[in-house]
Amino acid sequence: MHNLAILSRDTTLYMTLLEEAQLPFLALILADNKLPESFDYSQVDILFGDPDLTAQVVNRCSNLKWLQSTWAGNAALFALDKNNYQLCGVKGVFQQAMQEYVFAYLLYFSRNLAGFNQAQKHKIWAAPTYQSLAGKTLGIMGVGDIGQAVAKMAKQFSMKTRGYTRTTNNCEYIDQYYTYDDTQAFAAGLDYLVCLLPQSSETTGLIDQKFLSYLPQHCVLINAGRGTTIVDNALIDAIKNQALQAAVLDVFEHEPLPEHHPYWQLDNIYVTQHTAAESLPEDIFPIFSENYRRYINGLTLQHLLDFNKGY
Amino acid sequence: MHNLAILSRDTTLYMTLLEEAQLPFLALILADNKLPESFDYSQVDILFGDPDLTAQVVNRCSNLKWLQSTWAGNAALFALDKNNYQLCGVKGVFQQAMQEYVFAYLLYFSRNLAGFNQAQKHKIWAAPTYQSLAGKTLGIMGVGDIGQAVAKMAKQFSMKTRGYTRTTNNCEYIDQYYTYDDTQAFAAGLDYLVCLLPQSSETTGLIDQKFLSYLPQHCVLINAGRGTTIVDNALIDAIKNQALQAAVLDVFEHEPLPEHHPYWQLDNIYVTQHTAAESLPEDIFPIFSENYRRYINGLTLQHLLDFNKGY
Repeated sequence: MHNLAILSRDTTLYMTLLEEAQLPFLALILADNKLPESFDYSQVDILFGDPDLTAQVVNRCSNLKWLQSTWAGNAALFALDKNNYQLCGVKGVFQQAMQEYVFAYLLYFSRNLAGFNQAQKHKIWAAPTYQSLAGKTLGIMGVGDIGQAVAKMAKQFSMKTRGYTRTTNNCEYIDQYYTYDDTQAFAAGLDYLVCLLPQSSETTGLIDQKFLSYLPQHCVLINAGRGTTIVDNALIDAIKNQALQAAVLDVFEHEPLPEHHPYWQLDNIYVTQHTAAESLPEDIFPIFSENYRRYINGLTLQHLLDFNKGY
Repeated sequence: MHNLAILSRDTTLYMTLLEEAQLPFLALILADNKLPESFDYSQVDILFGDPDLTAQVVNRCSNLKWLQSTWAGNAALFALDKNNYQLCGVKGVFQQAMQEYVFAYLLYFSRNLAGFNQAQKHKIWAAPTYQSLAGKTLGIMGVGDIGQAVAKMAKQFSMKTRGYTRTTNNCEYIDQYYTYDDTQAFAAGLDYLVCLLPQSSETTGLIDQKFLSYLPQHCVLINAGRGTTIVDNALIDAIKNQALQAAVLDVFEHEPLPEHHPYWQLDNIYVTQHTAAESLPEDIFPIFSENYRRYINGLTLQHLLDFNKGY
């Protein structure tokens, strides 16, 4: 028998899915969205849950063999010293949501929907200006499965694409790759920039005053990776000085975004509530289920993460 | 020698392009965006211009052999009795613009950009609801080259597609075809409806009270075909009674849209100024140029329109 603990905001949904799946040799010994202090975590060999919750008990799980995360961002788990277990992420489930989020805003700005809305309010027939995405250049920071899906959609809209990456260089939808040494060359000439980078020592503070100064004034920045990548004050200055057209922010250093934070009220800053690509239990559970099948059959788990790389 | 008259809002741009092209055996005898009364139109054998302008002089062009239109909509020319000349439309140049227009609004509604904007204004971290386009059904009225391009993009966003057509039935991006006899079956269950139909006796008033009653309440209607397809009062009633979520209107029975028209001010009506897919001289001129080459070589012209069909 294997002993499973589920710790997630979506515990109820995951329990339903688990019951329906009837996985063999599996005992559910904890399913909660809080962290019971009295529980004997040393019984657990499999943890399945949200990284921010599981990170708070993982050190107490002395017999943990495998942790299946429910989210794409696992910084909370990488921040701990403990690494004597298999940590699995989730892949292949966020592409469509991220494509829709990114292109909703790219088209909102390029087709100038706000401008048309204003013209209508004033009953002005003369049309506001707008542009096509065709021929425009989209920079994509982080070219994993999500970044590649965004690049693929960019090609459907006849855009040029640049990838900013440490490792990947074989995506057919990226016209040109840039490494962390080519930051200026990457940023110069971008019409749109989408950041999908995970949180790590390398990405923290990467988009700073210097980085922003390389971007053209008309560039629109979308951050749907992690909030720590951006130096908030530098971005606020760039927006206030009109050195950047707009920023769409889905992630923040502190979430929920504190009420006093300038991002809430700045013109040309668009706040969304870490909703660009959400984890849906119906998408995530099949990943757990397939990995459990592999686990009991001694096969290599899917979406294994690397404690050295941090992703 | 052939005698060419250009009548277009973009005359200046077309003249520049014409000079650069240096087409053989071609004399430009008129280039204007007004209609000179004193001009001897009987000299003209080739007309190149906007349908609303050329329609006003075409009866006077007694030796006209070929008219190259600059627009997709040519109702003004079909409305005349004269049909003893070759009338050519423009194709293959509006797909990208229409894809961007349609998906800018589909994503605006599905990702609830207005709701997120409101939440930001009130500094609310709890996220508004939104939906994915994936699995949603898009109805496309008019499945010519533009409708097919919209269907292709719908497939990129994993949508289901229905085509409403008299004739076409071979587009790989349309899941199911409906004819004018299947109106109710076509409309029922649509999440989004895009109308791209030309103006004709069959399409005038097609989207009436009955048609609208077939659509689900949450459906969003986009009309980027011709304004006469919609019965304005029926649409206004449907919007006021919340029998329809929203309508995005790019075309109107009378353009410019009169200042007193209710469309300007109704909640959930979005007015754009016949800008969904505009004719750009740099896109249109190559069509004229290629057709002129064919004309002087006695070859069949491209994008020939049919006076009997009206498109």
